[in-house]
Amino acid sequence: MMKERVIFVTNDDGYSAKGFAAAIEVARRFGKVIAVAPEVVQSGKSQAITIYDMLRARLISQSEDVTIYALNGTPVDCVKFALDHLLADQKVDLAISGVNHGPNSGSNVLYSGTMGAAIESSFYGIPSIGLSNLDDNSDADFTACIEYGVAIAQRVLESDLPRPLALNVNIPKLPTEQIKGIKVCRQTRGFWRDHFHKHTDPHGRDYYWLTGGFVNFEPEAEESDEWALANGYVAVVPVQVDLTAYNQLDILRRTL
Amino acid sequence: MMKERVIFVTNDDGYSAKGFAAAIEVARRFGKVIAVAPEVVQSGKSQAITIYDMLRARLISQSEDVTIYALNGTPVDCVKFALDHLLADQKVDLAISGVNHGPNSGSNVLYSGTMGAAIESSFYGIPSIGLSNLDDNSDADFTACIEYGVAIAQRVLESDLPRPLALNVNIPKLPTEQIKGIKVCRQTRGFWRDHFHKHTDPHGRDYYWLTGGFVNFEPEAEESDEWALANGYVAVVPVQVDLTAYNQLDILRRTL
Repeated sequence: MMKERVIFVTNDDGYSAKGFAAAIEVARRFGKVIAVAPEVVQSGKSQAITIYDMLRARLISQSEDVTIYALNGTPVDCVKFALDHLLADQKVDLAISGVNHGPNSGSNVLYSGTMGAAIESSFYGIPSIGLSNLDDNSDADFTACIEYGVAIAQRVLESDLPRPLALNVNIPKLPTEQIKGIKVCRQTRGFWRDHFHKHTDPHGRDYYWLTGGFVNFEPEAEESDEWALANGYVAVVPVQVDLTAYNQLDILRRTL
Repeated sequence: MMKERVIFVTNDDGYSAKGFAAAIEVARRFGKVIAVAPEVVQSGKSQAITIYDMLRARLISQSEDVTIYALNGTPVDCVKFALDHLLADQKVDLAISGVNHGPNSGSNVLYSGTMGAAIESSFYGIPSIGLSNLDDNSDADFTACIEYGVAIAQRVLESDLPRPLALNVNIPKLPTEQIKGIKVCRQTRGFWRDHFHKHTDPHGRDYYWLTGGFVNFEPEAEESDEWALANGYVAVVPVQVDLTAYNQLDILRRTL
């Protein structure tokens, strides 16, 4: 008999998020699920780790198929706690991070806790899928996310893709039947530009709220993930972990 | 008369760190310094941003040449506060992040708050230099960091390097005269492997400390930054902000 697969699940919205339940629903189709998610929302935490604080783990629920822990750390802390501690002696077949409430397309990938965890998981040689729903509502509909999540996970598990493998998968805010299919893309060029909203507290002291929006430098680029999403496709971008700008090496060698 | 340059400085160890004073010393050789650094240590914060908390800024000191603010946020919050708010209407000529107390070579670049801020600064079209001292002692000697920081900043300012430009510069823990020079490198292949040290509090509840070490997959690779540092060179890795794994696009298009 084939040994049952082990699937690791995490997210950045915290263990009680609706999208986390959706990711577990994807994962349990393929094997036994071990899930470790942050106690509280960790959106925008990128690949942050906790160095100067202690971490506490709490068992949320346990059944034959699904075990869930909450950890008072970042998404990457959850990955490390799962893969270097809880599951250190086990083969893990797949990692799923999400489903995030809100997009992680374009340069969002750099700030995303969901993708921080997906990238971190890929360091362990485990194929890793970050799933994000363009609908950031806490009660968003995850039907299409589950359907496409299952399809992509199935193909990743059945193929022998190169490692490290970390896929940034974004799903449009559309009913499943209106989605045109999967498009493998590159990260859209563009950056966030931000505003600081100044408020004053009752004691007369100023404080700020950081807000902003993504500025797309190439809205017409059909190979970009933003274009795919705007045109009704599920966007899949493979993410790399070697940040070297190879095309700048020569000019830097001549300059420095 | 030439308009005086404006240099932005930040770090991840907080505004009171010795390495921050070293970065300001580098910056003031080239122009007027506007510095915004975290109130408290933000090591390992990667490119994290603050979404659900307010931010407060505090003027630490102001002179004709150097203005320093502390912000109760992450390194990237400091960059955004400086470049989208304080300096939104000014041309900024150079960004310096650091000098970090401890290395940011190899895959550390992914977790580093110092490099998170350097990468973020590069999004504004400003050439950006992250400086890290391999000595992580709070009272480390920054003499070599200042000397090499000045040399690199000078060459960056005098040349017309491509943008976005974010340099990950690591300086060996050696007296300046023993350093062999600058080596432009690629990021070393390897990842951290971690341990969770379990402790028990006086109330009988378990908690953990995350520790670990970098596992170098290619210690003999002379083009890698870890090799350069181990052999007495200042290592410079240009960092890219497009995380697309282009070499995986074809196989993914066939698979998904």
